[in-house]
Amino acid sequence: MGIGDDGALINPSDNQQLVVASDTLVEGVHFPDTATGKQIATRALCVNLSDMAAMGAQPRWFTLALTLPVERANSAWLKDFSAGIAEISRQFDIALVGGDTTSGPLTVSITMLGEVPAAESLQRSGAAVGDSVFVTGYLGDGAASLKSLTSKFSINIDSNRLLQRFYSPQPQVETAIQLRGIASSCIDISDGLVADLGHICQASAVAATIYTQQIPIAEDVKRFSPKNCMDWALFGGDDYQLCFTVSADKIDQVEQLIDGSELNACKIGTIQIAGDGGCPVTVLDSNNSPIALKKQGYDHFG
Amino acid sequence: MGIGDDGALINPSDNQQLVVASDTLVEGVHFPDTATGKQIATRALCVNLSDMAAMGAQPRWFTLALTLPVERANSAWLKDFSAGIAEISRQFDIALVGGDTTSGPLTVSITMLGEVPAAESLQRSGAAVGDSVFVTGYLGDGAASLKSLTSKFSINIDSNRLLQRFYSPQPQVETAIQLRGIASSCIDISDGLVADLGHICQASAVAATIYTQQIPIAEDVKRFSPKNCMDWALFGGDDYQLCFTVSADKIDQVEQLIDGSELNACKIGTIQIAGDGGCPVTVLDSNNSPIALKKQGYDHFG
Repeated sequence: MGIGDDGALINPSDNQQLVVASDTLVEGVHFPDTATGKQIATRALCVNLSDMAAMGAQPRWFTLALTLPVERANSAWLKDFSAGIAEISRQFDIALVGGDTTSGPLTVSITMLGEVPAAESLQRSGAAVGDSVFVTGYLGDGAASLKSLTSKFSINIDSNRLLQRFYSPQPQVETAIQLRGIASSCIDISDGLVADLGHICQASAVAATIYTQQIPIAEDVKRFSPKNCMDWALFGGDDYQLCFTVSADKIDQVEQLIDGSELNACKIGTIQIAGDGGCPVTVLDSNNSPIALKKQGYDHFG
Repeated sequence: MGIGDDGALINPSDNQQLVVASDTLVEGVHFPDTATGKQIATRALCVNLSDMAAMGAQPRWFTLALTLPVERANSAWLKDFSAGIAEISRQFDIALVGGDTTSGPLTVSITMLGEVPAAESLQRSGAAVGDSVFVTGYLGDGAASLKSLTSKFSINIDSNRLLQRFYSPQPQVETAIQLRGIASSCIDISDGLVADLGHICQASAVAATIYTQQIPIAEDVKRFSPKNCMDWALFGGDDYQLCFTVSADKIDQVEQLIDGSELNACKIGTIQIAGDGGCPVTVLDSNNSPIALKKQGYDHFG
């Protein structure tokens, strides 16, 4: 992973805008001290790739700043970490173009650069009254996986998919590129559906109503905790799926993609006129009664 | 410093290459725990700006990943830190385009993006036999300043310039842009003159001879420690001046810039055929005897 010069030279494509996003992962805050080098590398890259997806960008290049305690600065740890970087880089066709390694508390900071045709980027601010709200994939996977990592009790989990989800989130890069010109707004779900849809509402000066009956939750997550799974899906975060809005004149396009199995997404609600303060997202249960919105903080490790 | 979307959109200029560089500063490793928020911000940006200078790039945009312990996450600290970011951003006309803040040990990771006309970037690999070696400014300031910060003794230092140098290095951005098309190779002096000139030699497959009598050392550094000042200049690091090489046919251009006070630089040696192993840099004293090259490590804090 050595880089030869003080900086890396890259050649942006013509007629593209660059998208830049940075994310830092700190041991004990964003991952437990039991995480392997490969798991940390994989998660760090996936979190950043998800930011590219949120913008509808094609990820291209990244820099990596690795801060490593002396006891980890050995070839076995670095080999494992590098394997994770290599695997995700191959999978998403991205190039490591620079970075540095320093001594200190274990921290991984990645800056990712992507490209998007001028004026085609997806943003948070485009949602309009009457738009439909969609999400990709299943929600609650991230929180369920986190729970399985941090629980002190022997837990009844029978899903390898779920056990691995925390360290191998699935950035929705291809899906987001499909949504260029279709979605009116988009965000990746890192803080939790209600919080992130709230970010869309704030940026767009609108409100949203979503329906618990339409929230997609995987069977293994329901089995893992029938009691908590809806909370995880609404507030849990770390799903790295996309939440996006679509205007009425584009709904047919989205439905066709979904029906043809080209897009794994479902409609969960609608965009409305902004209210006067409070949470801009209303969640209605199976009786169409609004559920109380808890502010559920990020689960910290250590 | 809030950023609205998952990524920042930037528009690269036509016919320019992008230069990307990342640097991370960790408390206790790259700065002492006595450093103020403003000092940390200033130093972090200047170190990254110096990487842009080394490449001959015009710095344009940066992202900032700040990891902050709970006890510093207060408005006074952040205000001070932001003041440092704002001051250097104004001075160098660069824009903060993204970043994130996380909880953890104090770490500042910056990724800087700059532009350079296609094929005009300065690199380490262009030095050729017969080229002259130059440095900008004074050397040894960084190490002297570091010494004044870490010494447990009351030290005889009478120079405000020097006391401030550690937190306000002077990235040689304008000088580097002047050197486009003139310098055959370039590097910024962060690890120490001998080490960094060694990097040029390795990348260019050449060797270098430099003369202690020609090394520029400021009067206040000589006064501070007549005994150590040459060691600091040769091995000290943290100077953030430039070391560059110039081929015989461009020497007149450089001499004219120096004579006209448009370029603050001086010749310190020449480039030669690579030897067989060992340090590629030979340092000759005032008797033209080679001096023993100590490997002087980086001074760590804490």
